[in-house]
This record gives sequence, C-alpha cells and structure tokens, in this order.
Amino acid sequence: MKLTILGCYSATPRALNNTTSQVLEINNHMFLIDCGEGTQVQLRKHKIKFNRIKHIFISHLHGDHFFGLVGLISTFRLLTRETDLHIYGPKGIKEVVTLQMKLADSWTNYNLIFHELTSDKSEIIFEDEKVIVKTIPLDHRIYTNGFLFKEKEGERKLDINAVEEAQVDLAYYRKLKQGFDVVNEEGTIIKNETVTKAGIKPKSYAFCSDTKYKESIVPIIKNVSVLYHESTFLDKHENIAAKTKHSTAKEAASIAKQAQVGTLLLGHYSTRYDSLNDFKKEAQEVFDNVELTDDGKTFEF
Amino acid sequence: MKLTILGCYSATPRALNNTTSQVLEINNHMFLIDCGEGTQVQLRKHKIKFNRIKHIFISHLHGDHFFGLVGLISTFRLLTRETDLHIYGPKGIKEVVTLQMKLADSWTNYNLIFHELTSDKSEIIFEDEKVIVKTIPLDHRIYTNGFLFKEKEGERKLDINAVEEAQVDLAYYRKLKQGFDVVNEEGTIIKNETVTKAGIKPKSYAFCSDTKYKESIVPIIKNVSVLYHESTFLDKHENIAAKTKHSTAKEAASIAKQAQVGTLLLGHYSTRYDSLNDFKKEAQEVFDNVELTDDGKTFEF
Repeated sequence: MKLTILGCYSATPRALNNTTSQVLEINNHMFLIDCGEGTQVQLRKHKIKFNRIKHIFISHLHGDHFFGLVGLISTFRLLTRETDLHIYGPKGIKEVVTLQMKLADSWTNYNLIFHELTSDKSEIIFEDEKVIVKTIPLDHRIYTNGFLFKEKEGERKLDINAVEEAQVDLAYYRKLKQGFDVVNEEGTIIKNETVTKAGIKPKSYAFCSDTKYKESIVPIIKNVSVLYHESTFLDKHENIAAKTKHSTAKEAASIAKQAQVGTLLLGHYSTRYDSLNDFKKEAQEVFDNVELTDDGKTFEF
Repeated sequence: MKLTILGCYSATPRALNNTTSQVLEINNHMFLIDCGEGTQVQLRKHKIKFNRIKHIFISHLHGDHFFGLVGLISTFRLLTRETDLHIYGPKGIKEVVTLQMKLADSWTNYNLIFHELTSDKSEIIFEDEKVIVKTIPLDHRIYTNGFLFKEKEGERKLDINAVEEAQVDLAYYRKLKQGFDVVNEEGTIIKNETVTKAGIKPKSYAFCSDTKYKESIVPIIKNVSVLYHESTFLDKHENIAAKTKHSTAKEAASIAKQAQVGTLLLGHYSTRYDSLNDFKKEAQEVFDNVELTDDGKTFEF
C-alpha cells in the first residue's frame, strides 16, 4: 500500500502549496482521492500514469478538493483515453462536470461514470475481489464524505506439515485456504485452525477531510492501518476550527487514539502557521505514531 | 502598456507549460485575459496584486482558457476581497460559475458582475475616459471572441510659444487641449492646429485566440500597436490547423501584415514541437516584427 501526497494544504493553491489530492496504490488499484486545482500537473510531476487512474473519489465540492477534476477529465479526453473512469462524489458533481463539457462542446470518448453520493450513513461504494471502499460520513459546512479503503482478508496459509500429517487430499487445499474445515481420507473432520495460519494481514486506509471533530466515525475507522485526518488548525485556534467545521491536530490525534489506528497522517494545514512540526508535536501529546504529510511525500505501508 | 504572459501553451497545463492567460496593464488598468487552470498560482508567482484585477475577459469556454476562473474567484473570496469584479465572456459563463458557488455554498462578498457575450459582430464591452475594449469575433469550434484594448486619443499638447503669441486666455487652454478652436482676447478665432500638436500616440493591443485564419478581423485590428495572434501549428500541419480551427504561424503573420500592426506576438503553441523558434522563423517570412511569447515573459510597449 503506497500513498502519494499530491497536495495537502487548505484553501488555495500557491507556488509551493497544493490543495488536497492523493493517490492511493492498493492491490493494483490507483485510487485518486480529491482533486484540487493543478492536480493534473502534480500527477505529471510524480510520473503517475494517467491511464492507471480508473476511480476518483471526491470528498466534497469545495474548490480546494475538486477544482482540478474537470481539467483532468478534459486532459484524459485530449490524450484519447479509452479506459472507463468512475467518479464518486456528492450529488451535483455530474451536473457541474457535464455543464462544462456541454459549454466546451467537448465530450469524452471514454465512459465517464458518475456515482453520486447522498447518504449520511457509511455505505459500500466500490468492491472487487480484493478491495472494498466505504464512505465515512463527515461533518463539514457542506455534505462531505471521507473514504475507507480496505483490503479483504487474504487466504489463510497452509501449515504444510500439519496438512500432510492430517492426510488431507490435495483437492481440499483450496477450501482450507478459504477457511473451511475439511474431511480427510479417513473421514475425520479436520478443523481449519489446526492446519492453517492467518494469511497476510489486510491493510486499510481511511481518508478523513474535511470535518470537524466527529467521534461517531471511530467505529467505522477502528483499527485501520493508516488514518489521514485533517488538522487545519492548532489547538490555539480551536474556536476557528469549530466555527469553520475543521479539526485541530489535537482532535485528529484524539480520533486516532480512540480508533486505535496504526499510523496517523496529518494534513490540510492552514498556511497561517510557520512550522508544520507544531502540528506533529501537538498530536503526539495524545497519540504517538504521527506523521506529517507534505506535497510530494510518499508513504509505503 | 505592459503585457505579462502567464501562460501561452495550448491544450493542457504541464509542469513547465501553462495554458492561456495574460495580464495587460494599460492606463492604470490590470486586465486579465483568459484564465487557464493554475492562473492564480501564476499571478502569485509574478507578484500581480489580486486586488488590481477588476476586469477579466474570457475568449471562449474551452478548458485551457477558463478552467482557472472559478478558482480565482473563490480565492478572491477567501482573501475577503471587497472590490467589484467584472467578467466578460460567452453566454454560459455565469451559469457554470454560479453553479459551483451554489454547490460549495460559497458566495462572494464582493460584487461579481457578468457581462455575457453572444454577438457575432464586434461590440464595445468596456469604456472609460481613457480606454475602450471591443470584441473581435473569431472563428473557432465554439463561440469565441478576441479582444481589442485601445487607448483613446490623448489630449493635444499646447505649443506654448504659439499660444502666447496668439494671445489666448489661460481659461481656454483646456479647450485647446481637447482639440477645439478658441477665440483670443481680441476676438480672433484661433484654429486649434495652429497652436497645438498631437498628443502621445494612443496604444492598442489586440488579443486573438483561438481562431482559424479569418481575414475579416483585419479591419477591426487595423494598425494596432501589438497583435497577439494564436499560432497553434506550423505550416506543415496546416491541415490539422484547418480541421481544429486553429491558425499556423504563417497565417498569423499574414493577418499581421494585412492589418499593418506594429508587433506580432505568437502563442498558444502546440507542445508537439521541439523549438519555438520555428514559429518565429516561419512568421518572419511573411511579416518582419515578430516576437515569441513564453510563460513568464513580459513585454513593454
């Protein structure tokens, strides 16, 4: 699982600060999460192949999270893309994209499939054999979702000595890997856990931006390997955070602690602060394993 | 008159190639012409004060000419702008901007005044004491206008010796500067041209992008000081130019020659070519005074 931060600053793009966009590589997927203005240039800079992006997840329709979307869609068209593109985002996203295509009289040759979100409950929005994606309903000034990306439980590993000793026929190995009990050549039931071990632990990533402090997301993101939680402000500006429905670094850490996540990533920083390290320090007073995102940074988990 | 090129490449923004946007400084105005994605970052890079921009002219609604507009409007809002902002552009521009404000529930505190264009004849769209702006109807795949920015004739200069000799009362100097004949202390009519000289020659700038070769614009841009004319292609790709309704460098030069302009600026280059100098060479076979625009370049006239 690899995460590339294309942009992690709030409000407006600047020469050295890009607004929110991330690429999550998980189980052969390249998921693009949010798409602030200039994301297509950031993708080029980081040499991410446009054609590998098949799913784009937009948290909400504030400009710093989606003003780059229509440009990216348009560039895909100019590059004669043929691969389907799925867009997941709040209701309205289809209208605003198609209006711009209509005004430009520029329709995509590839299939553009919108999955508009309206629910305020967590729901599965993507699923294949290996990965599942769920929404994380957040609480911001407008309708906003975070996204939970989760690998499915992998196959169990055979304890080959135990299997042979139990005289299980080769034909049943697959069932064992899938977690079932089987019957051996002598008709005895072989309990799965006696001949297999847990497979590779599935990884998971939760993206939570933008939101005010919201404890009710804890059950949804419980035990995720990595949590990105916005921390627009420091605790000293808690009142501005509350007013604008954003979080402080301390609040992000509190959510991480309650959800017992592996690693907490901070981001969506207000540019009013001189040093990002203050965010890390503040969060680490509550939760130990904290990392700072920054534009261009990659994380492998 | 100063022109700053924020972007001059066609199609899509890249790390080192910005799409169309220019700032024209003329008679204390800062006119923003077109606004491709990333224009707000380019404005910051070139230290152009956001508040001095009060008029934005959008030629057409292809993404490489206007995908940066909504982000700029939104950033003005975040910076608590209070100054009115006038947007001139094709019909539909208001709908697409206001839809995005509606979806983001983010309305400007400042006045946003749209001037939607629909005419296929040249028309005056802005005028004050010193400057006039007219549309230049172009011929592209969708409704497109160029823009002609023209200083008005300045006041005439008094020939102070002649005026005194003609015994004109001080009270009439203003009328003389405005070009009127006056009566002197003895009741004699003093012909204006006998006591004044022409003032500073008014400057003018014509922006023509995007368009196929269109001779009928020549009378509108006749004798302008500076003509920016798109040259997406070289002559060897004349067929692609015709098909996509763009111009070649040679065609741009032919328009410049017919209109007897002072200087021709080329731009809106396709990124398929290795060297911009080929555009200049080709144009100079037809018209001598050719300059290449490039991102970040400024021209003073």
